[in-house]
Amino acid sequence: MDELKQRILSEGQVLSDSILKVDSFLNHQIDPTLMHHIGQEFARRFSNEEITKVLTVESSGIAVALMTGLALKTPVIFAKKKKATTMDKDVYVGKIYSFTRREDVYIAVAKRYLSSEDKVLIVDDFLATGEAAQGMLQIVEQAGAKVVGVGIAIEKAFQKGGEILREKGIRLETLVQVTNLSHGQVEL
Amino acid sequence: MDELKQRILSEGQVLSDSILKVDSFLNHQIDPTLMHHIGQEFARRFSNEEITKVLTVESSGIAVALMTGLALKTPVIFAKKKKATTMDKDVYVGKIYSFTRREDVYIAVAKRYLSSEDKVLIVDDFLATGEAAQGMLQIVEQAGAKVVGVGIAIEKAFQKGGEILREKGIRLETLVQVTNLSHGQVEL
Repeated sequence: MDELKQRILSEGQVLSDSILKVDSFLNHQIDPTLMHHIGQEFARRFSNEEITKVLTVESSGIAVALMTGLALKTPVIFAKKKKATTMDKDVYVGKIYSFTRREDVYIAVAKRYLSSEDKVLIVDDFLATGEAAQGMLQIVEQAGAKVVGVGIAIEKAFQKGGEILREKGIRLETLVQVTNLSHGQVEL
Repeated sequence: MDELKQRILSEGQVLSDSILKVDSFLNHQIDPTLMHHIGQEFARRFSNEEITKVLTVESSGIAVALMTGLALKTPVIFAKKKKATTMDKDVYVGKIYSFTRREDVYIAVAKRYLSSEDKVLIVDDFLATGEAAQGMLQIVEQAGAKVVGVGIAIEKAFQKGGEILREKGIRLETLVQVTNLSHGQVEL
């Protein structure tokens, strides 16, 4: 997706060989028009699927999911991050290992919003190690729902998340693949 | 806003005399089309202002802010919740007292995304005690920017947040006012 590529190249900041900061348009300040186009692009790519719900995780996935749901005309669900101690039996729970926090984080979705009838598109702003996507897959699986695919705005193709999902046979659509950050600049 | 009123009356759950749960369409599962209309309504109400930025706080404000920014064609910023220990000098910080957590929560916006040139519309899904709105006002003030107003989807009119903002001379636009929850049902 050329519009997103150009924004990454002009505004992305390489903070380390694995960290790309795009908080001027994607996940702190957001460009709503760009996000609208991202949502429309996911809707176009998955237009052959009968999607009933778009699922993401708070906070930075919400904008991507909302615009995708707007284009697909489906409800959007954002999984909430929780401490394990605050769980109740009315939620599906996924476990994510957070490399930045160096601890497990739990994400939860109320059971009444996902059922075995649902065909779910998982979306997120970034894919790196694939932890968040796998946590969401756990939730969809607990609901007995079907995953139609995973849509990612920016995939760090030098990390293993994409490979893990493809090996599971999941349809993965990424709008931009970052292939290298190790020379202080973004390679796409 | 009649569409939002009808959704509150048909789907809202009264959990106590101060808690209204609307997580089937507003802040866990989201109806993107309803949210689109909410954003368009805020844009219409503030159409006489030259807004340069829409500001909210994660997570449940993001959808409201994104759709408002889409309609106004302005960038959206969501303040991030932080522990005070993780603050740095590159952010503006607002302090919010969380009645649910019974502790202070800090919200932060990177300085480079707000300047004294900005005319800021603050939006959020709910207004109750006004803590979140006041935290965002602190941030706008630190930036030396102008607040053009506050847009709220659902105001709990029996709590003091609305009064506090109006007494400060801030233009407050709420789409639906909830006047009472104390008899186990929603009064608008």
